[in-house]
Amino acid sequence: MKEFELIDRLTRSLPANSALVTGPGDDCAVLDLGVSDRMFLFKTDAVVQGVHFTGSEPAEQVGHKALARCLSDVAAMAGTPIAALITLALPSNFDVAYLDKVYSGMDRLARRYDLAIAGGETTTNPERLLISISLLAWVARGRQVMRAGAKPGDALFVSGELGGSLAGKHLEFEPRLSEALWLAQNFTIHSMIDLSDGLAGDLPHMLTSSGVGAEVMSAAIPISSAARRAAKASGTGKTALLAALTDGEDFDLLFTVPSREAVRLLDAWKQQFPSTRLSCIGKISATKGITIRDKQGVRPLTLHGYEHFAQPT
Amino acid sequence: MKEFELIDRLTRSLPANSALVTGPGDDCAVLDLGVSDRMFLFKTDAVVQGVHFTGSEPAEQVGHKALARCLSDVAAMAGTPIAALITLALPSNFDVAYLDKVYSGMDRLARRYDLAIAGGETTTNPERLLISISLLAWVARGRQVMRAGAKPGDALFVSGELGGSLAGKHLEFEPRLSEALWLAQNFTIHSMIDLSDGLAGDLPHMLTSSGVGAEVMSAAIPISSAARRAAKASGTGKTALLAALTDGEDFDLLFTVPSREAVRLLDAWKQQFPSTRLSCIGKISATKGITIRDKQGVRPLTLHGYEHFAQPT
Repeated sequence: MKEFELIDRLTRSLPANSALVTGPGDDCAVLDLGVSDRMFLFKTDAVVQGVHFTGSEPAEQVGHKALARCLSDVAAMAGTPIAALITLALPSNFDVAYLDKVYSGMDRLARRYDLAIAGGETTTNPERLLISISLLAWVARGRQVMRAGAKPGDALFVSGELGGSLAGKHLEFEPRLSEALWLAQNFTIHSMIDLSDGLAGDLPHMLTSSGVGAEVMSAAIPISSAARRAAKASGTGKTALLAALTDGEDFDLLFTVPSREAVRLLDAWKQQFPSTRLSCIGKISATKGITIRDKQGVRPLTLHGYEHFAQPT
Repeated sequence: MKEFELIDRLTRSLPANSALVTGPGDDCAVLDLGVSDRMFLFKTDAVVQGVHFTGSEPAEQVGHKALARCLSDVAAMAGTPIAALITLALPSNFDVAYLDKVYSGMDRLARRYDLAIAGGETTTNPERLLISISLLAWVARGRQVMRAGAKPGDALFVSGELGGSLAGKHLEFEPRLSEALWLAQNFTIHSMIDLSDGLAGDLPHMLTSSGVGAEVMSAAIPISSAARRAAKASGTGKTALLAALTDGEDFDLLFTVPSREAVRLLDAWKQQFPSTRLSCIGKISATKGITIRDKQGVRPLTLHGYEHFAQPT
């Protein structure tokens, strides 16, 4: 059973109440806590040694990554973080100096966004370190940006550059909190998601939630130099484009705006975030599914089809 | 390094902000989210296979325990739960039917308290199942009951019966949410904590936070029949009193009220919760440390001293 099928099965009919605005299925849950001008976002995310980090990276980067992943999900809904709780599940041989450094990586990032670390707990997980973070954030009432909401004709944008994250970005990325907030305050963001499973993995989530499809222009996909370097160096035949579509852990923003705002957005972004790339990579269509256009023409890109499509010719 | 020393070290100077009212060191963190008549409680707690459950219990009980532990911490501050997020860290060989049952154990408990399960995530933990729950709750503004606040002369109470939890209670206990809320609404609760590490483990937390000591009457400690049965059956010489002091996982409430309210409380409790025992087990003293009084006299009970004290004579 795949992860998404499992989640779907377990979350089919969960208990709800009057505070719950949006349950499972978006980047964060949305809660109405009775504040007239705010809604609240609730999120949890874990990193596991041997899965999300090896244990041989600098410990500060492990702490940074653990918290930054969670903040990236808050960014995807245009939220502002308030407080986090840290769960450390510790292996038998844990090293206190290592944990100190994990905490200092989290602390530094938290202070940058005025996020309180409100506590947490330590428990035992004999074989490996697991760090789970839960986060509470806020968003102006009615201004949270969901995955659902993409409309036919919308321009599809992605921030930053994709692929090759394992070369370093996955440990060092800055969550796009400032960018997302600026977007939501200045533009009509119809839908947004953070890219954790790769463009080919996350775009379908947005489209399925919204009940639409998309046409992606192959040449517009911003491929990172890390992905290009890896494609050159590797003997596997994995192209840089395939890496950009599927590597995952980009933690950049994928979002849609009405096409009439696209040019103004590109201009304003350049002023506001001159060192971060913003790319219009295609448009939303009424026809479901994803097509990708390149010099050879237009072909369908299915969730499991990109491997075939992106084989080197 | 002991767990409490580690937590103390890691949480020494965490980032705070204007929303954070109480950080690490109590049963839950307390947040001010700008609601005029409410404060919010934020809590996380995990159970790990092979540590908190074996994996051979009914799966519903594992789900129940995971959520009930977290709710017990909310009860300890007289809170009302709002929403939970569930993190499942899954071993390689996970069984979907088992997870379905874990979820149904949590669901049933959540519905009983109008708690929304707002989402969560699944991740990988190859060797064992880990379930981490984060919880948001509310409390009337200024009415949250902290560990600190016990005053010399206060009467010291405990709900339920202590010891022998592993015989079954640790999988089936009902978090004392209703009792705690009733206490906070009808009495002056100076301090409260839920018993997870045993009376001898948790009473010192309350006393240290409050800067006071306590005199405990040995004969007043409510020893569970499970603890008595275990003491009779075992050849280890561990007395039922020692079990009541140290077994842990009681998930009952330990709290203090001004002595003038003690008799009214005992009477009203009997009316309100006729099937649950309430015991006045001693009083708070200005002198730090814990003394325990029995037929032989008064002796100090230190955190590490109960083993010696409670040896059979």
